Amino acid sequence: MSDAETTVAELRALIRHFVEERDWRQFHAPKNLAMSLAIEAAELMEHFQWISAEQSREIAADPGQLAEVSDELADVLCYALAMANQLEIDLSAAIRRKMKKNEEKYPAGEFRGRAK
Amino acid sequence: MSDAETTVAELRALIRHFVEERDWRQFHAPKNLAMSLAIEAAELMEHFQWISAEQSREIAADPGQLAEVSDELADVLCYALAMANQLEIDLSAAIRRKMKKNEEKYPAGEFRGRAK
Amino acid sequence: MSDAETTVAELRALIRHFVEERDWRQFHAPKNLAMSLAIEAAELMEHFQWISAEQSREIAADPGQLAEVSDELADVLCYALAMANQLEIDLSAAIRRKMKKNEEKYPAGEFRGRAK
Amino acid sequence: MSDAETTVAELRALIRHFVEERDWRQFHAPKNLAMSLAIEAAELMEHFQWISAEQSREIAADPGQLAEVSDELADVLCYALAMANQLEIDLSAAIRRKMKKNEEKYPAGEFRGRAK
Repeated sequence: MSDAETTVAELRALIRHFVEERDWRQFHAPKNLAMSLAIEAAELMEHFQWISAEQSREIAADPGQLAEVSDELADVLCYALAMANQLEIDLSAAIRRKMKKNEEKYPAGEFRGRAK
Repeated sequence: MSDAETTVAELRALIRHFVEERDWRQFHAPKNLAMSLAIEAAELMEHFQWISAEQSREIAADPGQLAEVSDELADVLCYALAMANQLEIDLSAAIRRKMKKNEEKYPAGEFRGRAK
Repeated sequence: MSDAETTVAELRALIRHFVEERDWRQFHAPKNLAMSLAIEAAELMEHFQWISAEQSREIAADPGQLAEVSDELADVLCYALAMANQLEIDLSAAIRRKMKKNEEKYPAGEFRGRAK
Repeated sequence: MSDAETTVAELRALIRHFVEERDWRQFHAPKNLAMSLAIEAAELMEHFQWISAEQSREIAADPGQLAEVSDELADVLCYALAMANQLEIDLSAAIRRKMKKNEEKYPAGEFRGRAK
């Protein structure tokens, strides 16, 4: 089941089940989950620490490295989903709302080809 | 459209469109996106920095704070989706694979009620 | 030689010597060092991830854990010193200047006992 | 007073005084300070997010940007010093011990010119 066939709610249910089965809700205070998310983001960054921006694009063509990066990215997302579960945040709505703000903040015409 | 009705692919398309419309692919080297993701994770953490774990749970009941936290969580996810777009990682597959590893690493029977 | 007898310049020289001996200056672009610093800060955070704020204070009394935390804190500082070396920033001056700003931003009378 | 004339203990005293004057020791649990340190490290990273490694070296020649980066680096160090104060860690000893480990882990002969 790929991204085209998987709803966000299905991924959230996967995490919820895992957490409940272990009775880990007690550890999943948003404060702790925010730390976890930042820790996993740093582990993802480790893969790119000493290479150039150009070299970091080439990871897409290296199955071994790509699998490692995919695992770290999954860790980040799992904690994001766990936090959404704890705080009952609808992620799709939050992303759509935030992207609407971004579109107003960075009008395509004005920011085309320009970093923020 | 809530998490129950939104596929991961739909969210990825939203980000892809935003990035292409601004010709920002040139800035979206995975190295840079990993930094962005870590920066947004830190901004999310800021909301929990000086409060206790217990207090952080109560944010769910405070609409103003919840909206701010939702925005930061959305930022984290947008960069995660952008990285998946750049490296062509199927996130649902990556999450399912990682959660399978986690289930083996932390058997429910053994880790019930115990932090990792 | 303790903190009372060690100048910041002596610590900087220690790092500079280590980096030069390995010809690592080429990797020490500030962009990379900023990532390294954030990665080490996350590793430090890992020690506090699942414990309460109160429990985190008790680490001072646990020699084993304190040694681990000291190592991570040293890693953070080594990268901060390496960045100061690359950019030729006088850290003592920077800290004094920043603390002066903080004193103006958070007047002691007004902020006594209150989190920012 | 530059890095050549300033001991680590003097910088620690500066932070201790600031914290005590505001009665902020109550907020300075190591768990919270580790979060603060990671947040400041991310703010430092923001300055290097969209530029290349080469461009990041050129910041040394731009007084305006250098002052901003110095401020962020100072923030990182202030929280590192605050954590050392709370846990009574001698930073100079910790750095010397960690650098000795690094010398054994990365022998100069073997790692000359090679990233870790």
